[in-house]
Amino acid sequence: MDHKLLEQLLQEVQSGTVGVEEALDRLRTLPFEDLGFALVDHHRTLRQGFPEVLFAQGKEVGQIKAILTSLWSRSENVLVTRLAADQAAVLRADFPEARYYPDSRLLTLSRRPIPDRGRGLICVISAGTADIPVAEEAAVTARIMGHQVETLYDCGVAGLHRLLAHQALFAQATVFVVVAGMEGALPSVVGGLVDRPVIAVPTSVGYGASFGGLAALLAMLNSCATGVAVVNIDNGFGAGCLAALINRKD
Amino acid sequence: MDHKLLEQLLQEVQSGTVGVEEALDRLRTLPFEDLGFALVDHHRTLRQGFPEVLFAQGKEVGQIKAILTSLWSRSENVLVTRLAADQAAVLRADFPEARYYPDSRLLTLSRRPIPDRGRGLICVISAGTADIPVAEEAAVTARIMGHQVETLYDCGVAGLHRLLAHQALFAQATVFVVVAGMEGALPSVVGGLVDRPVIAVPTSVGYGASFGGLAALLAMLNSCATGVAVVNIDNGFGAGCLAALINRKD
Amino acid sequence: MDHKLLEQLLQEVQSGTVGVEEALDRLRTLPFEDLGFALVDHHRTLRQGFPEVLFAQGKEVGQIKAILTSLWSRSENVLVTRLAADQAAVLRADFPEARYYPDSRLLTLSRRPIPDRGRGLICVISAGTADIPVAEEAAVTARIMGHQVETLYDCGVAGLHRLLAHQALFAQATVFVVVAGMEGALPSVVGGLVDRPVIAVPTSVGYGASFGGLAALLAMLNSCATGVAVVNIDNGFGAGCLAALINRKD
Amino acid sequence: MDHKLLEQLLQEVQSGTVGVEEALDRLRTLPFEDLGFALVDHHRTLRQGFPEVLFAQGKEVGQIKAILTSLWSRSENVLVTRLAADQAAVLRADFPEARYYPDSRLLTLSRRPIPDRGRGLICVISAGTADIPVAEEAAVTARIMGHQVETLYDCGVAGLHRLLAHQALFAQATVFVVVAGMEGALPSVVGGLVDRPVIAVPTSVGYGASFGGLAALLAMLNSCATGVAVVNIDNGFGAGCLAALINRKD
Amino acid sequence: MDHKLLEQLLQEVQSGTVGVEEALDRLRTLPFEDLGFALVDHHRTLRQGFPEVLFAQGKEVGQIKAILTSLWSRSENVLVTRLAADQAAVLRADFPEARYYPDSRLLTLSRRPIPDRGRGLICVISAGTADIPVAEEAAVTARIMGHQVETLYDCGVAGLHRLLAHQALFAQATVFVVVAGMEGALPSVVGGLVDRPVIAVPTSVGYGASFGGLAALLAMLNSCATGVAVVNIDNGFGAGCLAALINRKD
Amino acid sequence: MDHKLLEQLLQEVQSGTVGVEEALDRLRTLPFEDLGFALVDHHRTLRQGFPEVLFAQGKEVGQIKAILTSLWSRSENVLVTRLAADQAAVLRADFPEARYYPDSRLLTLSRRPIPDRGRGLICVISAGTADIPVAEEAAVTARIMGHQVETLYDCGVAGLHRLLAHQALFAQATVFVVVAGMEGALPSVVGGLVDRPVIAVPTSVGYGASFGGLAALLAMLNSCATGVAVVNIDNGFGAGCLAALINRKD
Amino acid sequence: MDHKLLEQLLQEVQSGTVGVEEALDRLRTLPFEDLGFALVDHHRTLRQGFPEVLFAQGKEVGQIKAILTSLWSRSENVLVTRLAADQAAVLRADFPEARYYPDSRLLTLSRRPIPDRGRGLICVISAGTADIPVAEEAAVTARIMGHQVETLYDCGVAGLHRLLAHQALFAQATVFVVVAGMEGALPSVVGGLVDRPVIAVPTSVGYGASFGGLAALLAMLNSCATGVAVVNIDNGFGAGCLAALINRKD
Amino acid sequence: MDHKLLEQLLQEVQSGTVGVEEALDRLRTLPFEDLGFALVDHHRTLRQGFPEVLFAQGKEVGQIKAILTSLWSRSENVLVTRLAADQAAVLRADFPEARYYPDSRLLTLSRRPIPDRGRGLICVISAGTADIPVAEEAAVTARIMGHQVETLYDCGVAGLHRLLAHQALFAQATVFVVVAGMEGALPSVVGGLVDRPVIAVPTSVGYGASFGGLAALLAMLNSCATGVAVVNIDNGFGAGCLAALINRKD
Repeated sequence: MDHKLLEQLLQEVQSGTVGVEEALDRLRTLPFEDLGFALVDHHRTLRQGFPEVLFAQGKEVGQIKAILTSLWSRSENVLVTRLAADQAAVLRADFPEARYYPDSRLLTLSRRPIPDRGRGLICVISAGTADIPVAEEAAVTARIMGHQVETLYDCGVAGLHRLLAHQALFAQATVFVVVAGMEGALPSVVGGLVDRPVIAVPTSVGYGASFGGLAALLAMLNSCATGVAVVNIDNGFGAGCLAALINRKD
Repeated sequence: MDHKLLEQLLQEVQSGTVGVEEALDRLRTLPFEDLGFALVDHHRTLRQGFPEVLFAQGKEVGQIKAILTSLWSRSENVLVTRLAADQAAVLRADFPEARYYPDSRLLTLSRRPIPDRGRGLICVISAGTADIPVAEEAAVTARIMGHQVETLYDCGVAGLHRLLAHQALFAQATVFVVVAGMEGALPSVVGGLVDRPVIAVPTSVGYGASFGGLAALLAMLNSCATGVAVVNIDNGFGAGCLAALINRKD
Repeated sequence: MDHKLLEQLLQEVQSGTVGVEEALDRLRTLPFEDLGFALVDHHRTLRQGFPEVLFAQGKEVGQIKAILTSLWSRSENVLVTRLAADQAAVLRADFPEARYYPDSRLLTLSRRPIPDRGRGLICVISAGTADIPVAEEAAVTARIMGHQVETLYDCGVAGLHRLLAHQALFAQATVFVVVAGMEGALPSVVGGLVDRPVIAVPTSVGYGASFGGLAALLAMLNSCATGVAVVNIDNGFGAGCLAALINRKD
Repeated sequence: MDHKLLEQLLQEVQSGTVGVEEALDRLRTLPFEDLGFALVDHHRTLRQGFPEVLFAQGKEVGQIKAILTSLWSRSENVLVTRLAADQAAVLRADFPEARYYPDSRLLTLSRRPIPDRGRGLICVISAGTADIPVAEEAAVTARIMGHQVETLYDCGVAGLHRLLAHQALFAQATVFVVVAGMEGALPSVVGGLVDRPVIAVPTSVGYGASFGGLAALLAMLNSCATGVAVVNIDNGFGAGCLAALINRKD
Repeated sequence: MDHKLLEQLLQEVQSGTVGVEEALDRLRTLPFEDLGFALVDHHRTLRQGFPEVLFAQGKEVGQIKAILTSLWSRSENVLVTRLAADQAAVLRADFPEARYYPDSRLLTLSRRPIPDRGRGLICVISAGTADIPVAEEAAVTARIMGHQVETLYDCGVAGLHRLLAHQALFAQATVFVVVAGMEGALPSVVGGLVDRPVIAVPTSVGYGASFGGLAALLAMLNSCATGVAVVNIDNGFGAGCLAALINRKD
Repeated sequence: MDHKLLEQLLQEVQSGTVGVEEALDRLRTLPFEDLGFALVDHHRTLRQGFPEVLFAQGKEVGQIKAILTSLWSRSENVLVTRLAADQAAVLRADFPEARYYPDSRLLTLSRRPIPDRGRGLICVISAGTADIPVAEEAAVTARIMGHQVETLYDCGVAGLHRLLAHQALFAQATVFVVVAGMEGALPSVVGGLVDRPVIAVPTSVGYGASFGGLAALLAMLNSCATGVAVVNIDNGFGAGCLAALINRKD
Repeated sequence: MDHKLLEQLLQEVQSGTVGVEEALDRLRTLPFEDLGFALVDHHRTLRQGFPEVLFAQGKEVGQIKAILTSLWSRSENVLVTRLAADQAAVLRADFPEARYYPDSRLLTLSRRPIPDRGRGLICVISAGTADIPVAEEAAVTARIMGHQVETLYDCGVAGLHRLLAHQALFAQATVFVVVAGMEGALPSVVGGLVDRPVIAVPTSVGYGASFGGLAALLAMLNSCATGVAVVNIDNGFGAGCLAALINRKD
Repeated sequence: MDHKLLEQLLQEVQSGTVGVEEALDRLRTLPFEDLGFALVDHHRTLRQGFPEVLFAQGKEVGQIKAILTSLWSRSENVLVTRLAADQAAVLRADFPEARYYPDSRLLTLSRRPIPDRGRGLICVISAGTADIPVAEEAAVTARIMGHQVETLYDCGVAGLHRLLAHQALFAQATVFVVVAGMEGALPSVVGGLVDRPVIAVPTSVGYGASFGGLAALLAMLNSCATGVAVVNIDNGFGAGCLAALINRKD
């Protein structure tokens, strides 16, 4: 429609109904969307292979179902984040294609196998058992965006040998997502072992002076290893997206 | 030398001087470096095209000169960070090849033109004039690691049109370094315009409730745009390294 | 009664029963309320068109009903803030004129249409869906104080085109209320687009390093745009009041 | 020039050299500045009566002189903020029209008397003697933007009578700027006495648990008075700008 | 008993059974309680007129009843703090003399009228309605320690006239307890009006940037009025005790 | 003069020139100072025996001399706080009566011996050697207000016997000022030994996690001893004033 | 198994099947676990007498039972921490040997009496009644690791005599665990009385400005006594482990 | 002298001059030092082999010399901490036996070789070059207390092989002091490799979000390794003392 308006204006210029000066004036006041600017949004989704994403937290299951129905009608892939198990059970009755990941509270819907969009492997490493849900959130997110992911869990810095035993795998990865709560030291250790980007994800795992993940967050921001950057506490989804962007083929 | 020890042990096994059991025992207690582990370090430097880096802050010019002489004797490229202007003047007398960047307080030494190791362009954007030194630190770091960098300065969110006017450039970049102090909003805005990784660098530019860059740091960690990760306050060097790692050809 | 005391004193001076010196002494010790000082309060309410306001949070529905009955007996307009939906249902049985806004948890009572007290339009903009309840709290508050309000929701900085598409509307507003959680960048962007006062409202929307709205609050306080001031986290009511004061006709 | 490009395109459409479809394509890719978007900036400055502003802090006097010369060549009014006294002395040799305010470290340059752009009076109140420089920064800023300002200094809450003695003045003001360090209580008290917008400015005046103005900032954000909003610590300039925007005639 | 041990030792010295040297050695190693040191505790309670105090929070009603029975068997007055209403109901069946204060969650038991131990009046002032429970906690605590208390509630700084109207009362008090949440400004205002000690009690009343009472706490610590000291957030009990100590007759 | 206005109005009422109604109206609009309200200030100073106080910090010696001359012309006692030693040397040339306390950076001027205004002894205790200047600030302040002060220094909790050895002195004091940095434990220990008010003064003595006195401040606010209240970090002056108010005879 | 791989390689070298050079290459790429590195873990457990530890918090009773069954099948001692009472009841049906400590929420399983591994006595001291569960966690942990523990509870610094009365016991201990919430002063006092290591454990006991144990934590970190180190808030388990390590016989 | 008083009292009891009751009364009021309590202090110093310690920071060289002279006259060993290099130069003229450690700013004075008081070796490890001064402070402190110390510097977690290469040394140590700034991860890694107590020392090395060592401090408090406790930021002296206490022979 906006496109129509612009086309019509240009046709009026072409036909001489509207002069150049008047056309200039009208162009200046057109809202940006009229100029196709809003397309950037679609363009971005298409090029990145981004799924449609729905944050379920704080919404009722009826609302989620309605939005999900709408998204699913126009998308190849849909990702629902922070979805409770009981809500997932309800949704799966209506969306039998849905796959639910209870640890990471994600639900995915995909019409067909997702083509591989990656240059290499994304390696997701987590420190403690309690960090696994956030790590899984990153892994599932990256996979639905078309990337191969390997996961290494329970590799905390107090038991280095478990981490060092997997150095062969490290050589195959193009980007690392490293998830840790408590003292948040794992990204620094991994960053010292690899020569690839490391996305550090602090988690709220811990108690007392962890202050809800602040300790891990600060540790990661102060990493003495090069090549480390940090996302928000418990933001597995964001880390998975960023890893996918880094690993993009083109 | 360590290598020698191991070789000798194996030769003793080969010759029968040392039995398998004894060899097993001795292997377990050998320091790891003896097993070539330390080579990882060199390997990493070589593959990444990392320069040798010398943090000058807190050191006297005599110390810096001594270390620089040593590094320069064995390296293709040396990067000195946080070097004061008067110190740089002294060093340039001894190292006429040196190039000093007064804004970012960096000094570089390169034996020959640095080969291009990048897949594409790194785009470094900064918000205010006062953020430029940190942005330059990122740009110079990425360049000495063999990457093409374009810089856009003075593109704060209170004057969006300056940023939007450069959207054509955005399409050419594979990774963005976005530097901002005060409210730290620029990475979110850039992250919404591009479909590439965004490395956000908070700076200590500001006063009062900026609390030395904390306000910008928190804002960037909470970015509503996907694909954004954050490094430490004023850490232009770290952002440049990470951008180079992301942009690596292979 | 206080007034009576003072009148009587003056009559005694007039009649000579009390001398000037003694009257001076007695005047000095009269409580201020006796001098009509408390009238300031009423004066203020009348001139501003302020409704009576009742904070429902932490009160039982019986208490709320009692206070509301009292306020409604002497006021043109009553505003109940932070009222739970089940409490609202109970109250509406007794106050059929009441209108409840479930998103913003406000209930309003008005005897007759509220006259327009504004010089222009108040524009309320919010960043994410989750910020809407706070934005609505501001909008309803301003409306019951007699001001025209337009709302623009879901205009986060990661999708600038949605915001920019409404620039025509911006020209009509005399004051902006901009509501955002997470990185709190929206007020800076709006402040750069308009030449009117911007009241920034941080919300507690977010998680992890948002620290209950602290990240957004700090970002807004450090806004690089001029003309921006900030209210407390989630304080939609306060922003609506202030917008109304700024937009007052006289 | 951008304008020229667009004009030329339209002329080509008019003349038939370029078809409508091709014109549409080219329009979509034109940088925004080409569409006159950048004019918003100028427009804003002109309509608001904003002076050109130069932050002197961290710049050398030579740099300041160069920028000032450039700004002064194209502006009616220039405001230099955070300018040291010795720098001001140097500048005044070259700019005899300059007026320097040592308390607030401002320097102003005005070609001719600034026309009154205000609806009423701006009242600037400060708590302690040490808060005066910030209050003066607000007052001078508002005046150079064309507004009448009255100042009341040394009206801290521990001596209420000094404040209450000026209630007559309060009735004449359309907006208040209230500046306080330490416990930051003054804006709440003023907000309870007036029915006008109150811009609260916390200052870094204090020691110990004032934490550089944090105590005053938090107090002001939690004000129990309605109609109060807060700017950054020591941000007298921002408060002056906002007061001017609120007090604008149209 | 300990006293007996010491008495016995001295008698052995007196009778010559134990020599001076040996007595010296044994005295040095006697636990301090043996020397009557523990009596300080009782002495203190008796001289101060302190009631026995039982913190009920976190205890089950059975535990509370058992402790209360024990305390009541040996004390004139018992004070139970932070006691839930349902627990109080249970206890009152067993302790018909008990008086429960639901607002402040205190329960008192007194054998006979408490004698007046004060030099004058303790004046307890609170800012908002929500601060009353903490104020009551202070008032009831001071009363059971034998002091006269007057309370002034709902005297927030945004409505100064309510406070000022009670200045006559101020002249009669020897110590003030001033309770406020949100911006915590009231103690500074009261401190400026009186020449008596002011005990400031911050409360957790507020939201957002009140950070659980931190804003009020910092404001009170930075009070510009002299004669103000601060207790912990919501610590009405502590303020009541301190006021009683200050108001003690001897 | 204000007094004159009021007197004149009453005379006009007396003489019948002004009617009661008109007088009532004019009284309501008189500024408060006209009603003698400002006298509260003087009254307070006189009754409390407060000296005039001049904060020297941040002022030049010329300014200090001018203010001091003015204060000294109308006061019995003057107290200058936070005065540097070199400034004191200059002032003492002009004010030979002045006494300077280099540790606490105080200077006092007194016309004649200060009469004893106290009910008993004020006991000032400090933990470490580095806390003595703040303790001295409290002691000198209380003395110039007419109170007897005993000081006990270097009584930190890591050497309890030094403190316990002075218990005899404790029985004589009516109020305690307890000064400590680092872990700030001393007020709790003293509060457990005495049955008198304890004013706790945290100091900025310490490093690292003392965060400029925050650790000591928080410890004191959380004291498990009853009868303890806290002033701002390093606020020896405030503690001395409060101790004097508590110890006042009447 | 890994051991087998290495043994086989050495046998191939011995037999001449594999040359020294090739063996060197293969050794370099073997994962570290293959070199027996992982044995460190077991070694450590065995030498320290560490029990297997299971953190029950956040796990369902079914999960806990499964893990516990597995651990119990291969261990002498198992320690379950942060186990709810209702979960413990379920587990005790299956593990009749289990002993549950409801205060500290620990459950222990031991096959036979634990041999004494200590050089001396571990003394666990706590300040208030509410700190006992954390103190018990430390005591039970140290005991199951084979150490003698004495506990002293309710020895807060506001009643020093209770602490001082136990000085005889102090002489027998080789290490102290001191547990305190609120102002966290007790470790400093104990540290001043003894010449042994003091492990300070801050607890989250308190309210208001205790900020969840932060006040006690900071106080302990700033202890003026030598020989004090601090563990995380409420980390009784960690303190017990460390005390056991310090008290180890060899 | 105190001893004399007590002896005299007992002699008076013995001789019948003073009755038992009177003696009891007088004993209760004797200051504790009279009972030999103060000897604890000396006892402690002697048994621990503690040197006399003088904190030089904030003192002038004259003061330091005076105190040092006094300490040296009665002690075997003196340790001066935080002594500037220029001050050390002055002191060494007067104390030719003095040894100065410029990195750690310590000066030691010892009359004769210090006997070995340790059970084993203390191992001091530091992460970065900038952490060495704090590590040296710990090492020198432990040595002057009579303990053998080995140091491993520059073993940050980003280069694990350097740390792992020294595992043989780890087996010989009885206690570890691990010093790190920035992300503070090293103590967790060391704690996972050894079965001995680890004293973690955060340093203020870092910038931006290290917040003066807070990041390292929090990381260490949240260590996932058992057997780790933490001292204050930069507190090398405290760590050295504690290590010595742990390593004590008896």
